[in-house]
This record gives sequence, C-alpha cells and structure tokens, in this order.
Amino acid sequence: MLVNSIELINFRNYSSRKFQFNNNLNLIIGNNGQGKSNLIEAIQFLSISKSIKTNISLELIKSGCIESSIIAEITDDDSFKNSIHIKFNNRGKQIILNNKLLIKSSDLLKTFNTVYISEEDINIVSGSPVERRRFLDGFLTKTDFEYMDNLKQFKQIIKQKSKLLKEEKINRDILVLYNTKLIGINKIIIKKRRKFLEYVKENIQNYLENKFHHIKNKKVEIIYTNTLNNENDEKEMVNKEIKYRECLYGAHRDDFSINFQEKNVKKYMSLGQKRLISFILKLSEKDYLIKYKKINPVILVDDAFNGLDDQTIKITEELLQDSLQKIVTTTNKNKLFSNINSEINEIEIKENATI
Amino acid sequence: MLVNSIELINFRNYSSRKFQFNNNLNLIIGNNGQGKSNLIEAIQFLSISKSIKTNISLELIKSGCIESSIIAEITDDDSFKNSIHIKFNNRGKQIILNNKLLIKSSDLLKTFNTVYISEEDINIVSGSPVERRRFLDGFLTKTDFEYMDNLKQFKQIIKQKSKLLKEEKINRDILVLYNTKLIGINKIIIKKRRKFLEYVKENIQNYLENKFHHIKNKKVEIIYTNTLNNENDEKEMVNKEIKYRECLYGAHRDDFSINFQEKNVKKYMSLGQKRLISFILKLSEKDYLIKYKKINPVILVDDAFNGLDDQTIKITEELLQDSLQKIVTTTNKNKLFSNINSEINEIEIKENATI
Repeated sequence: MLVNSIELINFRNYSSRKFQFNNNLNLIIGNNGQGKSNLIEAIQFLSISKSIKTNISLELIKSGCIESSIIAEITDDDSFKNSIHIKFNNRGKQIILNNKLLIKSSDLLKTFNTVYISEEDINIVSGSPVERRRFLDGFLTKTDFEYMDNLKQFKQIIKQKSKLLKEEKINRDILVLYNTKLIGINKIIIKKRRKFLEYVKENIQNYLENKFHHIKNKKVEIIYTNTLNNENDEKEMVNKEIKYRECLYGAHRDDFSINFQEKNVKKYMSLGQKRLISFILKLSEKDYLIKYKKINPVILVDDAFNGLDDQTIKITEELLQDSLQKIVTTTNKNKLFSNINSEINEIEIKENATI
Repeated sequence: MLVNSIELINFRNYSSRKFQFNNNLNLIIGNNGQGKSNLIEAIQFLSISKSIKTNISLELIKSGCIESSIIAEITDDDSFKNSIHIKFNNRGKQIILNNKLLIKSSDLLKTFNTVYISEEDINIVSGSPVERRRFLDGFLTKTDFEYMDNLKQFKQIIKQKSKLLKEEKINRDILVLYNTKLIGINKIIIKKRRKFLEYVKENIQNYLENKFHHIKNKKVEIIYTNTLNNENDEKEMVNKEIKYRECLYGAHRDDFSINFQEKNVKKYMSLGQKRLISFILKLSEKDYLIKYKKINPVILVDDAFNGLDDQTIKITEELLQDSLQKIVTTTNKNKLFSNINSEINEIEIKENATI
C-alpha cells in the first residue's frame, strides 16, 4: 500500500498544504512544534478513520475554522488507485471513498493500512497494564473482526456487572449468570491474545538473533497473566468481587510481561533498551500483517529514535530497509539515514505552529 | 551542595566502581543499557534515601549478590564534608551518616538535596492526573513537612472512607464525619499545591520571556481543578459517593492543566514542546529550593534532551549554565554541550550490563 499524496485543509496547525510521497523512504524534517506529528496523525486517520491522539474530532480542526478536510490519493495492494476525502465539522465526520459516501467507516481498513511507531510506544513496555492491553486490543481489533466482536460483548457484560456490584443488595444469581457468560468470551479473547504474543515473541527473538550481533544473550520470554481461568474457585471469586465491589477477574485485568535473559524488561532495563524493545514490538505488527494478512502496510515512524545510541540507531535504520513505504519524522535531517543509499524524499515542515 | 565521589558495590549492574565528580558539569557518556541511569539513581538515593525507580530494595542488588552498598562523600551548603554509607540486603536498609547510624532516613534530605530531571518527566504534562499529583506531592512532601503530615492523614481517612463505601449497609453518619475531617485537611493541601503552582507558572513565564526569544506568544496559565470545595452540595456529594461506592471528592482526585496561548498543552502541543515544558517545570523545583529554602541542590539530568530540536537543545543547555553541580547522562558526547566553554568532567561508562 502507498499514500501517494495528502492534502490537509484547516487540519491542526495547517491552513492548506499538500504533500507528495515517494514509494519508499520519506523523511519529514522540522523543529519541535511545526506539525510533523500532525501530518502523521492525518495519514493514520486514512486507515483507522479516527485520530490516534484524540476522540474529539473538533480538536483536529484548526483554531478559528469550522470545517477540516483530509484529501488523499492512495494505492492499495492490488495497485488500484483510490481517493479518500475525510471531512469533519461540529456535526460529525464524513468519509468519501472514490466519490462515494462510506457508511461503515471501518471499511477504510480494507483499503489502507498503516503501522504507527512512535516515541510513546515505550509505554507498552514501561507503562501500566492498560497500555499493554491497548497494544493487544488495538492491533487485534484492527485485524480480527471476531476478536473485535468478542471484546465489545465482553466490555458490555463487564459494564453491567460493575453496575450490579455497586447496588446495595447484590443479586448473587445474576452475578453468577454474568460470570458464566464472561468465561466463554474471556477464553476466546485470551486465546487470540496469547497467539499474537507468541508470534511477537518469536519475532523479537529473530530480530535479536539476526540483527543484533553485539547482544550476546538473547533469550526472550513473554508471559501472559490472566486473572480468570479454569482453576479459579468460582465461589471464592464471587465473594471477593462482592467484598471489593469491583470486577476483579477477566481479560480487562490481564497483563503481560516481557523477560529478557530471565530479567523483567520493565524493572531491569534502561529507557534506551525499552525503547528498542518497543520498536521491535511494533515491527512485529508489520510482520504479522504481511505474513498472516497478506497486507503491506505503510510504516509511520514518529520520533521513535530518541534516546538510542548510535549503534542501535544504525541497526534500527537497517530494520526499516524493506520495500514498504515509510514516512519518518525527525528534528535533524543529518542524524537519520545518513548511511543509507536509497533515494530519500525530504519534506521540510515549517509552519510556525503552536510555539 | 556537591557530591564529590560515589562508590557503588553490587548495585544494579555495578560490581564495584568509584566515580569522582567536579563541582560543575559532569557528563556521563555511554551506550544504552550500560548503567548511566543506575548511577543517577544511586546519587538520588543519597538524598531521598530511597530509589526513584522502585520501592523494592532487593531489585537494586546486583543479581547473584546478597548485599549492596552506596558510599559517598558529599559537601553540604555550609561547606561541610559528610560521608554517607547506605547498605541494603534482604533484611532491610541501613543508612550511616558520618559513621553514625541514622534512625530517621528522611534526615538525609537535610544534608543532601537533588533535583532529578528525566525523559520520563514528559508524563507530568502528557500522562494521567496521577502523574501530575505525583509531581506536586513528590516535591511538596520533600520540602514541606506540614504538607507531608497532612497528606499522610488525608490518605488515611480516604482509605477508611473507601472501606466504608464498600460495606453492604453504609453508615451515613460515619461518612459525613469522615467528610467533615477531610474538608479541613483538603483545604491545607490544596492551598499549598496552588501556591507552588503559582510559583511554577511565574517561573515558566520568566524562562519563556527571557530565554526563548524565537517564541512570540508566551502566555502561560496553570489551572488547578479541585473536586472538593466550599460550593459542593454536601448531601449531593454523599449520595453520589454512595451510588458509585467510591471516594469521588478530594485532593486525591484533583488535577492541573497547563495552557499555553490559551491552548491546552496536553492536547495541542507536540512531544518536543511537551518535553521542553516539563523540563522547565522541573527547573522550577530547583529555583524554588534556592529562593525559598536557601538550598543549592545537585541537578541530575537523565536523558532529558531527547526529541528536542537543535535550537531548543542549545537554549536548554544554556538554562543549565549556573554554579550548581550538574550530572548529565548522554549516549553521545558530541551531541551535548559542544558550545559550552566551562570545564566538563567526562565519565565514560561501559559495564556491558543487561543487554
């Protein structure tokens, strides 16, 4: 897949600007606060049909304006050219694909896919369990509609159950009924999460073995911890949930941890190392899409090289040496890809935006 | 204050290593995962007598060892030299100040103070309210013992109240009693938080006006949002808390937001800009200590320049041009302080640690 061009009208800090991209490496260069990430956000919007940064479309409209547009030409994996026009104002959002209004906005995913790698991915490794579940659910709901449905159902039951647990007199029978429903869906969610993580683990292992020769010991483990399984004592569970008046068991409380050389990455690794591991985690999304979904996504890399040492930056740049289209932001063009011979499309951004 | 030397024995990835520091700028240079942050963690330990990274002392002991030591010579603001020896093993932690066992470990703060600036400070700006309260409480408990006492009491009442709210039959009278107690303490906490934030605001404003000439509009606001104040309808509050069975009102739920040019920093600013603002937030801690507490802290800067453009890095480096002692980590010695003429003590670290 390719994004050939994108035009931003009253989007974030842009009044009106059109960008053209080449088929391989595009470097977006600019100082802090000029709008590099806003461009990446717009491209990502073309795929998931919402912003990665906010749920409130109005925040995307340039201050003082009433309507905003993203207009793009993309090429899908069958080499067909498509036009996408996304318009939003205070009445909502309209998506026009090849001049036809799209009813189900998630249909955009069938036409255009991206993998978004950013500085903030480090939170997958070092943040709270919420961040790790967001990583899993974010990717799986995008690629597996059965997962999406199950997760939606799951969340609904948890919501009902939460409400029940706040009532003065808790009806135990209804609680047990909810739990019975939850167990089945929970199983499907966990199975899919585990399978994806198994792939991720193998993938990290491969990267470390084939690319990082200076790292001697490379044993990687990913351990999924689930709060609800077959061994739970059902009665004890119910009692505990009634005592704390919270839904304590289920996929919404699960977590995973990454061990490297039998040491927990979150606890024992430096920020630079965590950044590297989270970078490879996101590359696994790309590899999974190519291998299992036969999709060639566009790779968006937003400020993801910060805090890496020179050797690691070099290897990380090499990891991006494939035939996929890449759009990469940086504050200094001399720092990145100086050793790479492939043609680079340099786009300078100077919009004098917020600061 | 100065840290003249520090010796680490079986601490994190160090078996045994001694470091000497000069009185102004010390640059700790090393690749990812060599132990730069571990050294900073040890220096910070000398001040707050616990780790900034973990509450579990055992995680600090080098793998395979049973005991760890930090031994340091420091100079306090009255130019007295002090020796600190901190020892920890699976039985606990011992702090020996000038060859005498220290009973109250918080007494170290009277001898040695640091301000710790790190890449992760960006979470103060872009993270959840928890991170912002941690910033406020972290600084205020360190510098204001009345605040520390009040916060401790406050947390205790919230804990009791939470427990009460989970009971099947909630005793309304006790709830109201707790709330009466809370209101008084809440007032003190908020007043001190607001006062500190007022200082922080003025300080950011000063920095922007005097140092960042390329930024045109510089209006900064910090807005503290409190959930419990005089206008709350007490009865309504109680009803709502009983319905949700949670402590919804009080300093433990408060937050603040930073506006720049009437735009919310968290929502509208780029990562680089947020990093800069969080950097200045932390410099405000330093300025506050000097101005109101007559303390000259040691400044620890751990990987805090990532993602800043060259111009901003230059200004940020200039902000660190004072007579305080500074210990700064970096992966590349050529990138930082290349334009500064003051004497730099370069310490290279290559311990071949975790990766």
